[in-house]
Amino acid sequence: MQRSVLRCDAVRSRLELCSIERAKPCGRVGTAPFSSARCCARPAGRSHRLAPGREGRTMLIVRACGSVAATLEKGSISVVLLAGGVGKRMGAAIPKQYLELRGQPIATYSLETFARMPEVGEIVIVCDPSWRDVFEKRFPGLPSHMKFKWALPGPERQDSVFNGLQQVDAGAAIVAVHDSARPLVTPADAAKCMSDGLVVGAAVLGVQVKPTIKEVDKDLMVIKTLQRSKLWEVQTPQCIRPALLREGFDLVKSQNLEVTDDVSIIEAMGKPVKITPGSYTNIKVTTPDDMAVAEKFLEERAQAEAAPAAATAAAPEPVVAAA
Amino acid sequence: MQRSVLRCDAVRSRLELCSIERAKPCGRVGTAPFSSARCCARPAGRSHRLAPGREGRTMLIVRACGSVAATLEKGSISVVLLAGGVGKRMGAAIPKQYLELRGQPIATYSLETFARMPEVGEIVIVCDPSWRDVFEKRFPGLPSHMKFKWALPGPERQDSVFNGLQQVDAGAAIVAVHDSARPLVTPADAAKCMSDGLVVGAAVLGVQVKPTIKEVDKDLMVIKTLQRSKLWEVQTPQCIRPALLREGFDLVKSQNLEVTDDVSIIEAMGKPVKITPGSYTNIKVTTPDDMAVAEKFLEERAQAEAAPAAATAAAPEPVVAAA
Repeated sequence: MQRSVLRCDAVRSRLELCSIERAKPCGRVGTAPFSSARCCARPAGRSHRLAPGREGRTMLIVRACGSVAATLEKGSISVVLLAGGVGKRMGAAIPKQYLELRGQPIATYSLETFARMPEVGEIVIVCDPSWRDVFEKRFPGLPSHMKFKWALPGPERQDSVFNGLQQVDAGAAIVAVHDSARPLVTPADAAKCMSDGLVVGAAVLGVQVKPTIKEVDKDLMVIKTLQRSKLWEVQTPQCIRPALLREGFDLVKSQNLEVTDDVSIIEAMGKPVKITPGSYTNIKVTTPDDMAVAEKFLEERAQAEAAPAAATAAAPEPVVAAA
Repeated sequence: MQRSVLRCDAVRSRLELCSIERAKPCGRVGTAPFSSARCCARPAGRSHRLAPGREGRTMLIVRACGSVAATLEKGSISVVLLAGGVGKRMGAAIPKQYLELRGQPIATYSLETFARMPEVGEIVIVCDPSWRDVFEKRFPGLPSHMKFKWALPGPERQDSVFNGLQQVDAGAAIVAVHDSARPLVTPADAAKCMSDGLVVGAAVLGVQVKPTIKEVDKDLMVIKTLQRSKLWEVQTPQCIRPALLREGFDLVKSQNLEVTDDVSIIEAMGKPVKITPGSYTNIKVTTPDDMAVAEKFLEERAQAEAAPAAATAAAPEPVVAAA
């Protein structure tokens, strides 16, 4: 059973909650089991602790807005690392996620990032068996308590995610699906998204779209200019409660749906999905130009880490609950 | 009066056209004065030449699709180069368009690109008078027949465009508004967009959106995933018939509209706007990260130009009609 401390702007008892749900039946309400809660509003920071015995059984309903955050328990997250793609667009002899950036295969950057997050308990690597050694070479340098598992890629992304999900520990609070072609995800952004996934059920890292976007018809004639403030570009990880994702795959299989990202499965079920604001540097390396950009970002990061003052300022917030 | 040779997939006489307009009153029909036309369809490549005296007065109506192209006359395009921005996001002491990339101010790259296009007859530079010398230093190296004019920036982008438009030659076929923070636009892409502007009335360079985009509510909860194939990110130049843009500004001023890009003015009038497929390298330099990316692209371009074989392959198509 997942236990977590929740900070939120609207904590309600079950009875009070019913009235919220009646008043706002709009899918903005998330549910999460909890053992204690601290309310940031009315009055700010006040703690609500449940009577013994109701811990973990009472449903806490929170309004899923930016100020809601669940604290992640140590080892409670299962990462599914997708490394099965063939990388047609790169024009290279090997899949793009195995090309080297600053002397290290792209896919191993995020492997190392997740392996060093205390929230993460296991990493399921979805890759062709012939590429396993790329990852295995890195294992001796990673924390020994971390479990690594393998899954086979499927014909489409969603098939690979499904295969990865079959390996996920039954007790995992969140499955975080990550594209190994995104080497630059930070532990802080990933943890925020995992936390949002725990509260809402499904969350995905994203950034607000910068350029003006227009919707066009098949002749490239403009239908309309979209309202930029409402548009978010999604990245990975995509963090979903495992039971919810399994339920989603039942729907996907029964209706033969095709989706390009994982939280779309949850949207297809009519369930809430949250965007967790991330970083523009969390790019997907798809073309040779992207390689150049990623290399530049990695260089900047290495320089920042070399400068002690800068490194301190950029340190991620601690997100794991004290034992 | 603009005269041009049009290649199109559906050339119709005036009478035939009326039936097209009745059948498809959907804004996909553009108009352009012409002197001769070559029909690429039914049968492919067949030429239609008008009776003497009807040249340039008859309206040719074409279905505005990918295969329509107008040939640009020498000197028929007026460029409005926007260089009045203050560049708050860059965090530099000077506006971003005057920062140096490979030893040259950003804004002067596109100035030089346009000044070397035979289609372009004049360039109206919209900038604070204190920055004129940045451009004037480049003039001795540019074609001597090219006219350079000045206009003052306004409080918003659309005010700067309006001020620039007042300086545009009365006989210009197209006004091409370009953001000077986009140093990497190619002559080939710019010419394609100018040509589409001539056929349709208004066109803008754009690229298909790569990432998955979701529409969210104010709490960042996903409303829906947008259909990616219909989404285009717009760049500059934005190429519009001057009379149409003047008419658009009348509407903007009478209704007190605020728009973030120029062709939106045409959309607000209910008139057709086309997206001209451009290049992903035509980035807007807004942040220090963008500077690094732009520098990388410029380096690659310089290398390609240094290699004679590569340079030949990348040469833009000739777009100016033979005299």
